[in-house]
Amino acid sequence: MNLYIAFVNIFLYIIVSCDASGTDIALDAKATLLHRIDSLNLLIYTCLLTLTVLTIWVFKHRRVSWLHETGLAVIYGLIVGAIIRYGSSTNEITYIDAHPDPDSKYNLSVPPDMVRFHFPDKIQVTGDASIPNKTYAYSFRGEIVNVEQNEIDLKATFDPEIFFNIILPPIIFHAGYCLKRKYFFRNLGAILTFAMVGTALSALVIGSLMYGFVQLMPASLASSFTFLDTLYFGALISPTDPLTVLAIFSQLKVDVNLYAMIFGESVLNDAVALVLSGAIQNYEKRYSTDGEFEITAFLAAIGDFIGIFSLSLIVGALMGCLTALMTKFTHVRDWPLLESALFVLMSYAAFLIAEVCELTGVVAVLFCGICQAHYTYNNLSADSRNRTKQLFELLNFLAENFIFTYIGVSMFTFPKHHFDPWFIIAGFLTSTLGRAVNIYPLSFLLNLGRKPPIPMNFQHMLFFSGLRGAMSFALAIRNTVSEARQAMLTTTSLIVIATVVLQGGAATHALAYLRIPTGQGQNEESDALPFRDVRNDSQRGSGDSGSEKARLAKLWGAIDSRLLKPLLTHARPPLTETLPAFFRPLARLLTTTRQYTQGDNNGLRRTDSDSDLCIDEPQPVPTSIDPQQLWPGLVDTRISVEGITGSNI
Amino acid sequence: MNLYIAFVNIFLYIIVSCDASGTDIALDAKATLLHRIDSLNLLIYTCLLTLTVLTIWVFKHRRVSWLHETGLAVIYGLIVGAIIRYGSSTNEITYIDAHPDPDSKYNLSVPPDMVRFHFPDKIQVTGDASIPNKTYAYSFRGEIVNVEQNEIDLKATFDPEIFFNIILPPIIFHAGYCLKRKYFFRNLGAILTFAMVGTALSALVIGSLMYGFVQLMPASLASSFTFLDTLYFGALISPTDPLTVLAIFSQLKVDVNLYAMIFGESVLNDAVALVLSGAIQNYEKRYSTDGEFEITAFLAAIGDFIGIFSLSLIVGALMGCLTALMTKFTHVRDWPLLESALFVLMSYAAFLIAEVCELTGVVAVLFCGICQAHYTYNNLSADSRNRTKQLFELLNFLAENFIFTYIGVSMFTFPKHHFDPWFIIAGFLTSTLGRAVNIYPLSFLLNLGRKPPIPMNFQHMLFFSGLRGAMSFALAIRNTVSEARQAMLTTTSLIVIATVVLQGGAATHALAYLRIPTGQGQNEESDALPFRDVRNDSQRGSGDSGSEKARLAKLWGAIDSRLLKPLLTHARPPLTETLPAFFRPLARLLTTTRQYTQGDNNGLRRTDSDSDLCIDEPQPVPTSIDPQQLWPGLVDTRISVEGITGSNI
Repeated sequence: MNLYIAFVNIFLYIIVSCDASGTDIALDAKATLLHRIDSLNLLIYTCLLTLTVLTIWVFKHRRVSWLHETGLAVIYGLIVGAIIRYGSSTNEITYIDAHPDPDSKYNLSVPPDMVRFHFPDKIQVTGDASIPNKTYAYSFRGEIVNVEQNEIDLKATFDPEIFFNIILPPIIFHAGYCLKRKYFFRNLGAILTFAMVGTALSALVIGSLMYGFVQLMPASLASSFTFLDTLYFGALISPTDPLTVLAIFSQLKVDVNLYAMIFGESVLNDAVALVLSGAIQNYEKRYSTDGEFEITAFLAAIGDFIGIFSLSLIVGALMGCLTALMTKFTHVRDWPLLESALFVLMSYAAFLIAEVCELTGVVAVLFCGICQAHYTYNNLSADSRNRTKQLFELLNFLAENFIFTYIGVSMFTFPKHHFDPWFIIAGFLTSTLGRAVNIYPLSFLLNLGRKPPIPMNFQHMLFFSGLRGAMSFALAIRNTVSEARQAMLTTTSLIVIATVVLQGGAATHALAYLRIPTGQGQNEESDALPFRDVRNDSQRGSGDSGSEKARLAKLWGAIDSRLLKPLLTHARPPLTETLPAFFRPLARLLTTTRQYTQGDNNGLRRTDSDSDLCIDEPQPVPTSIDPQQLWPGLVDTRISVEGITGSNI
Repeated sequence: MNLYIAFVNIFLYIIVSCDASGTDIALDAKATLLHRIDSLNLLIYTCLLTLTVLTIWVFKHRRVSWLHETGLAVIYGLIVGAIIRYGSSTNEITYIDAHPDPDSKYNLSVPPDMVRFHFPDKIQVTGDASIPNKTYAYSFRGEIVNVEQNEIDLKATFDPEIFFNIILPPIIFHAGYCLKRKYFFRNLGAILTFAMVGTALSALVIGSLMYGFVQLMPASLASSFTFLDTLYFGALISPTDPLTVLAIFSQLKVDVNLYAMIFGESVLNDAVALVLSGAIQNYEKRYSTDGEFEITAFLAAIGDFIGIFSLSLIVGALMGCLTALMTKFTHVRDWPLLESALFVLMSYAAFLIAEVCELTGVVAVLFCGICQAHYTYNNLSADSRNRTKQLFELLNFLAENFIFTYIGVSMFTFPKHHFDPWFIIAGFLTSTLGRAVNIYPLSFLLNLGRKPPIPMNFQHMLFFSGLRGAMSFALAIRNTVSEARQAMLTTTSLIVIATVVLQGGAATHALAYLRIPTGQGQNEESDALPFRDVRNDSQRGSGDSGSEKARLAKLWGAIDSRLLKPLLTHARPPLTETLPAFFRPLARLLTTTRQYTQGDNNGLRRTDSDSDLCIDEPQPVPTSIDPQQLWPGLVDTRISVEGITGSNI
């Protein structure tokens, strides 16, 4: 926005010179112009997204695979950002220094919310203007740390609040809603290890290494970094973004367990990184006097982390279950519009409740999404299922592409970038190392206890899938007051852009090079399709493939199928059969006629699919990049290359 | 928001007294608290909407018809607004008076965008706090007209920008997208007369009468109103809101022509009122020195009105046609997600382009919606049709209910209400009169030339359907600086609440009392269902029922079916057949293989339905209020009372 304020000023000069008497008219014109500039900004992003959509179509149509849609959005953003930067003049905001009225009766030690500014009062305005002596309201924006550098336009560009409150929730909810829960729970141990332990470990390693690197750098920068700063950098650069890699995975039908591990890890590590960075900031606040390590504060930070994470999880899960109960015991399903609205409102309420309670809304909305998919989805009418799936798919698509476009644009337009080559190089090195430390040692440990171990080529692919994305960028742009934070933002932006464009583009080749089996999961997925038949349910009920399933998943499965499912959905067996006789009256109350009347083998149970959601997006045309062509003989030949349907250009 | 700032202050006092040294920590805590308050506000609205959804379901389930969902949203809003108002303490914002630094080199006659405020500099802060001497940034908010009344918190409550840029566009787009175009064009003459002439006439009558009333009032208020002010009031109170009435109409299957007239009029008069009020404001700006009538300025205002309206219309229609061309000549329909995203982005771009060009985005998005439904819809894949329909239906539902909830809440929480009983009474009287002046004389004139005249009971119903809604409220809250404007807002809010709750609740009875035929339109609609068969198309092509169709509609129909449809969609006959031989090469270029290969009678043409969109929403259970029961013998007995499907509570 800043960039256009230059135009505003030019415009205002014209107005002022034309009609010097009309301060009111000039102000009105300024307001109108600001509105138009806001609209223009939105329009630029809308057009960029339209362009991205059209190019994605061309790429899909022409079967281009060396560049993925997120990489495309970033590149378009970079181009437009450069045009805006070098095509327009400098960004100036008019400002003035002010002092409080000596007669004020103000008795707080914090600055006031508003300033009533008398203008022009004690200054001589040049020119022949006859300016009325008026009073204007000014609202609090923030502290100016470095008065010489005129950092006044600091926060006008991007409001992280919008990102965290509007853009992020649908993306995260969609991730939870689409989670292929069957494979997620099968690989729960590995996923939790990578996401929880791995992310914390990666943050610690990156933080420590960066602190070492920073000490070797020129004194000016080194002095501005504390260990907590570099640790914060470690926390924000650790979460991975799966979009690009997973889109390719699902096109090429890569092994479902690998898919589940990468998806599950990246969904959870976003949440982990958010809570972790919050805990680091809390630690910073408590002991801001010096950068020294204090054991009690450290323990408090760990307590923060665990407490906030688990409470957020509970809030989200409860809201999901509440929605399930509402949809089970009312007949709101007769009006799909009302039902969908209820679903959306309850899910957003989960996010808001967590935020109001100073928990992490993103974690809440993630687990709310998982519960909604697992329970509520079964109670919804067919129309609402379709509607909610499609709605969140679309929101997710638009929000994701907006973020990547924005990352590209902001690389040029954000006024507070700080390009420090050493810090950037160090950032790239340590973030790669951090990913390695996350994957290889933990895989080794996991393989000690894991029945089908994680093979080496899977480990390499897990390492390679460590693209950085939206969450890293959002955490970096949240605070850019100090030079250290600005250097972090610049480095993070560059890492995100490089990994998304280069690593994302090379993912297909990496799959082929590592001989990861593709084109499979067909058979396994067929039983997970919507309305899969009963055979599968009975298999499932009898506890199939005990060797594969983790014990944790088994225990959870028992509670789920005997207590939660019958309670929250219309699924069989009803509570009256699963609960002990003592609870019979209560159980009878919580069982619907529908649960009694339906047979075991029909109707509702079969719709409890954990994968009729979005993972298998409708893909009439898989990408044509057949790894076989790239690396003949290396890949599994089962890869499916289907023809184009309905295309006749 | 203001209401919670009291809490902030209390909280801050506590923090300050606990840890007086930490201004930084206090500021951080303040920022966190403000974020939580924002979330809390959103949460309150989310919960209110959830409650509304659940109550709507109960009402539909229990067949309650004396209160409609919009009325319900308003009432819930009123209750919660009252709780917030009387349950919390006063709303205070801390403020301080400030003067510019005498040494400033500032040379503009407009106030600066930012103020760099040195705090505490020249004031003595009481207490033992050791406050660092820091500089803070304050951004421009607006002028303080009345310094004594401390109007500083003026604009903190509601940002009309959000309303006009975020909430309104989906509602208006949905109205255009759902327009039953067949009946709309049949009644185009009446609709345009009511919407254009009628709204202007109504605004003029209300404005003049109000000016007369105001002159009779106490001097304090009278002096603050100019004729332009009352005219502005006339413009903002003239547009009608059809939601409540039309929901009942479609439930009871009221005569389709009456439905089309009320819907068409209210869709257009929103746009007319918006442009009209803009023209009045422009007039005001040009001749703000005195309230005298000037003929040139008046003509310029009329020119403004016509120019802005038609240019906005063109922008919207062009964007709609562009989307149609994109979806026709690319195969983006193979990826429904991309297609839907393109559709949404292009539609929003229409709104933004109009706003950037200082036109009226709402008018653009309305006509964009009409074109999207008429052309683009035919090119979309089945998945995208469904997705866009359901998406906008849901957005529309949420946005509408949010507005009505907000109207209710703001009645209590908005700090700048000005209750003037005389002005309120006058407002109610004149707005009723204005509606009458719109309907009866114009109906008389229309009946002179109209083949099936508008019967008297239809006229009464048109008069009765003059509920006021979202647009009036939004225009009223846009500017509440002066006392006159505040009195307008209060009166508008009350009129909206009263008409929506009382008139909306009585609509079913009014239908019965006026003996409006209900339960019909079944036969006529059956041929307008999705995938209606070919018979109907051929009828249509041969120009059925010439007596009914207006000449304007006929001419338009010819252009549409011979030029626009073949150009923009895959419809038959192709351009190669309809254009003169001279244009043959061009026509060949613009015709797809699909248009050549398909027969006249199959496939695509049949999906060109103007009513498979939202007018007939899925309504498994019509309201049970059978007017027969209320007014036995008075109503047509064809009213359909279907059983509840699938309900077994």
